Formats: sequence, structure tokens, C-alpha cells
Amino acid sequence: MVTYSEALKIIRTECNKIILHTEEVDLLDSINQILAEDVFADVDLPPFDNSAMDGYAVKFSKRNEWNIIGEISAGNYSPLNLSENDAVLITTGSKIPVNADTVLPIEDVEVQGNLLKLKADTFYKEGMNIRPKGNDLRKDQIAVHCFTKIDSKVIAALASCGKDKVKVFCKLRAAILATGDELIPINEIPADDKLRVSNTYSLYTVVKEMNHTPIMLGFIKDDKEIIRKKIKAAFEMDIDMLITTGGVSVGKYDFLKEIFEEEGVKEKFWKVNIKPGKPIYFGICEKNEKRILVFGLPGNPVSSLVNFYIFIKPAIDYLFHRNYLNNITAILQDNLKKKDSKLHFSRGILYEDNGEWKVTSKFTQSSGDLVEMSRANCLIVIEEERENPTKGEKVKCIRI
Amino acid sequence: MVTYSEALKIIRTECNKIILHTEEVDLLDSINQILAEDVFADVDLPPFDNSAMDGYAVKFSKRNEWNIIGEISAGNYSPLNLSENDAVLITTGSKIPVNADTVLPIEDVEVQGNLLKLKADTFYKEGMNIRPKGNDLRKDQIAVHCFTKIDSKVIAALASCGKDKVKVFCKLRAAILATGDELIPINEIPADDKLRVSNTYSLYTVVKEMNHTPIMLGFIKDDKEIIRKKIKAAFEMDIDMLITTGGVSVGKYDFLKEIFEEEGVKEKFWKVNIKPGKPIYFGICEKNEKRILVFGLPGNPVSSLVNFYIFIKPAIDYLFHRNYLNNITAILQDNLKKKDSKLHFSRGILYEDNGEWKVTSKFTQSSGDLVEMSRANCLIVIEEERENPTKGEKVKCIRI
Repeated sequence: MVTYSEALKIIRTECNKIILHTEEVDLLDSINQILAEDVFADVDLPPFDNSAMDGYAVKFSKRNEWNIIGEISAGNYSPLNLSENDAVLITTGSKIPVNADTVLPIEDVEVQGNLLKLKADTFYKEGMNIRPKGNDLRKDQIAVHCFTKIDSKVIAALASCGKDKVKVFCKLRAAILATGDELIPINEIPADDKLRVSNTYSLYTVVKEMNHTPIMLGFIKDDKEIIRKKIKAAFEMDIDMLITTGGVSVGKYDFLKEIFEEEGVKEKFWKVNIKPGKPIYFGICEKNEKRILVFGLPGNPVSSLVNFYIFIKPAIDYLFHRNYLNNITAILQDNLKKKDSKLHFSRGILYEDNGEWKVTSKFTQSSGDLVEMSRANCLIVIEEERENPTKGEKVKCIRI
Repeated sequence: MVTYSEALKIIRTECNKIILHTEEVDLLDSINQILAEDVFADVDLPPFDNSAMDGYAVKFSKRNEWNIIGEISAGNYSPLNLSENDAVLITTGSKIPVNADTVLPIEDVEVQGNLLKLKADTFYKEGMNIRPKGNDLRKDQIAVHCFTKIDSKVIAALASCGKDKVKVFCKLRAAILATGDELIPINEIPADDKLRVSNTYSLYTVVKEMNHTPIMLGFIKDDKEIIRKKIKAAFEMDIDMLITTGGVSVGKYDFLKEIFEEEGVKEKFWKVNIKPGKPIYFGICEKNEKRILVFGLPGNPVSSLVNFYIFIKPAIDYLFHRNYLNNITAILQDNLKKKDSKLHFSRGILYEDNGEWKVTSKFTQSSGDLVEMSRANCLIVIEEERENPTKGEKVKCIRI
């Protein structure tokens, strides 16, 4: 048995040995993927001095009257040559004419025919309302760093740098397999001691939520040879990760760990001092020059999903250098029971109340309760040495 | 000109008139969509009394020794009839045999052949480690509410309720059109006064991030008749929303507002007392018994994306009853300049530091700066009446 932080360290060590593959995709196909190159500005940004607002471009002087000699709108530059007397109507984003260095805001001036007058009690400063060429970024400076997630903000920067194609990291392919004699398809009515399979659905979804590729292997009975066949077949597939549920505890039907060993998976840890999900298994399968991460999660549906959040998600985030703002320290709103020395991940509802983060844990915390789990928005972390945290104490919460 | 809160109120009033359509999809195709029905448990959850851990099922009494008469694993129930003397080896999640009412944890007992003994100094309570049938939810109770987003947690609850198909709200179809003589394709080098188009990329992406359907109409020149043709064609498409950029200011080439009016769009507001993005336009186009939401965003790439975050995202969230935890109150780490009476949305970087939320705004805040925008993770809200907020003050931040 290892501690949670030991387990995370082991996972990171293994992640360091994984080589991520890359591919080139069209910019619009890169959404939500992770950039696999540093992207540099190929031109100055902005590419030319331009007006920060609608107004009149002038050459700075002490005067407060000008002759309007023309106009420039965005994309319609005209090579006007301004003297100190002259002003040019200019719209936001338009290129500043050669001799101009200042833009008077439209609300600060009055126009009479071709005559432009500064309003009384209005002042202007040299260089005002000009966005100079290269002010945002000079040519060849780095615009977007490798390992940045391509979201709506980033894609605009990539577009500005002319990246119609970008290099991204290939999505991970994660195969998902549930085991258990109790499992039945969800469109059947559970008779006697059977349960509808739900792990495969939640794990498939959470892999998709992380923008990777889940591969659904379905569910199979607790039959060692059937499971072995399925696992062997999975390792022959083009996968980066195998996630199983069930069969990793110490019961008579818990074959997974044995099969992993027999199929050459190197165990990295088994059992972590946490709740829920103590019997989690982690190993590495080296196959066809690939290193497949193997996670054996407990069969309980709440435990398996919690274990994804606390082991597999951090592993994937680490692989892709992601560091989300997912932890929030909050004030506990009820007393929580914890008498053992395990690290607990309890389901909670996190909310901001007048600038203060609070978390309520009014849940049964039954590890079978999928409905309550579905209403939670965080895991409350109760450290190993901490007992019975009470209302008013601060706790770390992981948003889920 | 309206205030931001007036603008939001107007948007909500119009959203109230929109009828959302629904469709039935396979459960795995419903990921990230919004549930359009209340889902009830069709059986008790769990469907039978079961063991919360690996252990021995017994009938509660004062004794501390039992005969092991058999075993039950998950999915392998056997109708054993227990007397007070008897114990049954049982694994987590397995159905409890008829006469048993208590499960002794495996770590609290010793086994000698068929003899089970409670360890010294160990006690047990009646009913311990049993998860009773229907404990999570009784048949016909509501499991998942309409308007819930189907994520990894929710899908497990839906699977448990036997929902192999679910009713979801159809995704919104949002057409995106940029206008401006300055715009060029991103694979061209900007010559003279041209700019690579980036708004269409960022708006396409942000619509996708919200799991709706962007329809890319590309970009066109500031030519009234060309724009009119494109807008007319857009209104004939099956869309719920039209988002344009550019052409809504007061310049000579700002045709959008005129065209909207001439094409029968009812203006709901134009110009909001905010920065950036003051000239934003909002109207409604009633066409073929549909009400199309029309948002005319400013042409500036930073402004148009900020305006999506602060107007269109709240509109979509309101339509689908979504209420994310996106606002965080944080302590400002630098002085911000603000002298006007507009509501400002400045770009910032939000982070948690030892349980305290902080936000830095070390940005030029130039509304042209896409690179800095791409590095921001929040908008800092500076209210209308607030001037020059300083380091140490609390500010509201919207995560982006």
C-alpha cells in the first residue's frame, strides 16, 4: 500500500517515459487540443501603426483647428501627406497616415464643413490613441507557447500569426473495459442481484471531456479466460491507456491483477491509502515499442469515477503540462465523519457566497450513490492525519 | 446607450420568447448536452440490499463466532438461509442473503477453516456495512433534473436509470460573419493596412466550446450590397443566432445596423456603456416562425471575443438554465487605470495563492492585443462608478 502522494509520484515517473506523438491539423480542427510547437509572430503585431479609436489623425502641435483633407477607414489606407494644418478622419484600427502621430477622439472635436475644431476645455497629448506597429509583439517573438490548450482566445492569436495549420499533440486513445458478473446492459431491468453497468459510460465520458479518445470495450463476466482474451486483444490495439473496472480487490473473482501480471504488465502500485478506491492498480505494459498506462479501478461506480478524477486526470494533465485552476480552498459547512488514517475524497457542493468559498457535504457519502455523485461539483480532500473535520474548518476541494 | 445590466435584462426578455427544440439521442451521444426531461429511477437504487465491503454477512446477535456456510460474490447470489450461527463470505456490492442484516469487515475477523471469529477488542453494530435497497433513490423518485448538463457524473446516474436514449435540447446553430475591408485570409502576409481575420476563428471556437454548432460564413468587404446579400442568405438558413463582427460603429462604412433594420431585424439595443465593445448591437429577426438572435459585435478582435463572453455566453447560459461557477472574487495585485464611467472588462490572470484568490492585470489592456488576451484567464470587472481600482482591493473576475 502506498500513500496518495507516493502514488502520484510513481505515475509522474512513468509519464516522464511516455513519448507524445504530434500531428499537423487545420487550425479549426485544433480546437481544444494541445499545441505541440512554439508559435512565433511572422510579422509585427499590429503590422502597422493604427488608430485606437474613431477620430481625427493629426500631427501633434499646439493648434486647436485643422482642415480636414480626407479620410481613412480600416483597410482603405490612402497615402495622404499631412501638414500641421491638416486632419484626416480615421476609424478604429485604420493605418495612421505618414506624418500623423496623434488621434483626436471624435467626441472631443466639432466639425464645420472641412473645419475641425477642438472642443473648449479639451486637451490632447502627443501620441494619444495610436497603437504602434509591433506594440503587441515584434516579428519573431514568441506568440503562443508549446503545450498551450487551443481555446477561443489562443486560436485568435494563432490566426494572427498566420497559422492555418498547427502542430498539436495526438489525442490519447484510452480503452475502457468493465468486469463483473453483476453487470447487465442498461436497457435491461436489474433482476435479482444484477446492476446496470454505468462505469463504462462515465469513464467514456470523462475521457471525452478531457478531449481524448475513449475506446469502448464494454463489459464482461468475471471469467479469468474471457478477461484475459479481452485484455490481450486490448494490448494489441493502438492504445495509450487501458482503464478497467472491477477485479482488483482481494476477492475470489478478482482476476485482473493476476492477468495483468501474467500478460507482462509491470505493476507500479496496487492499493493506495485512500477512500474511496483503495484497491486501485497501476502498471505499465510495454508493447510494440509503446508504453501503455494500465489503470485497474475498483468496480464500484462512484469509486471508479473518483479514481479517474484523482489519478488518471492528474496523469493526463501532467503528460500535457496542463495546470488547471481546479483546486479551491473552501469553508466546510457541515461536520464530516472520518476516523481512519486514509486520505478521503468526499463528494461536495462548492459555491461562492459573498466572496467566500463554501462547501457543503450533505451527502450520504455512500460509495454506491451515483445520484448524489451526479449532483456533486467537487471532491473534498481530507488528509490522512485529519479526523472528523468540522463546520467552519478550511478544506481543499477539487472541482469535478 | 444602455447599461450592461439593462442590456442583460433585455437579452433575457428576448431569450424568454425562444422555444428550445429537443431531440432523442443515444446516451453516449448526449455527452455535454443539456437534458430536456426529468429522469426518474425506474427501479429502486440500489435494487437490492448489498454489502458495502468485503466481509462476512451474519444475522446480528451477541456472538463472536460463526460457521462459514458459503459465499456470495457480486452477481453470484445464492439463496442461503442463515441461522444465528452462520456467516457467509460476501464481496462488496453483493446481495445480502435473506436472514443476514450485518456485514463484518474482513479486517475485523479471523478465519480458521470454516470457523469465523471476531478479533479481540473488535465490536460490531446491527446493520453495519449494509447498503439497503432503495437507499440512494426509491423507484419513481427523480434522479436527474431537466436542464442538467450531461457530464461524466450525470451519465452514470442516467445509465443506472436505464436511459439508453435520452431527450436533450438541440444544439443552437450560430452563424458567424466578419466584415471589414482590412481583413485578409490567415494564410496571407498582411501588406500595407491589412489584418488577418481572427474573429471568425475565435467566435467559431467559443461556440464549439459551449457545445453548440458554429456555422462559418467567413468574412466579407465593407460593401453594403455584398453584406446585405450575405445577411439575407443567413436569415434563410436554419440558424438560431447570427453573430457578426465590424460595421456597427458610427463610421461611414458601418453598414450592419442599417442593413439589419432594412432586413426587418428589430433593434433591442445598440451601444452599451462598457469597455471594450461599446458599439455592440442586439436585435431579433423573426423569420419562418423562428426568432433569430442577432448580435453585432465590434470588429476589434479582442472586443468581439470579450463581448461574446459577456453578452452571448450569458444569453446561452440563461436559455439553458446553466449557472456555472465562473465568477471569483479576487484581490487585485496591481493598480488599474479607469477614469471614465463605463463598466470595464479588463483581461487578467487569476490564481489561488495559499487559499486566497488573486488577480494580476499586468497587461497593456490594448484592445488590439490578441497575444496578451490569449494568456488571460479572466475578465476583471470594474463597475461604472469605480475609479482607478488599486492593489489590494477586491474585484469580481469572470473566468474565461
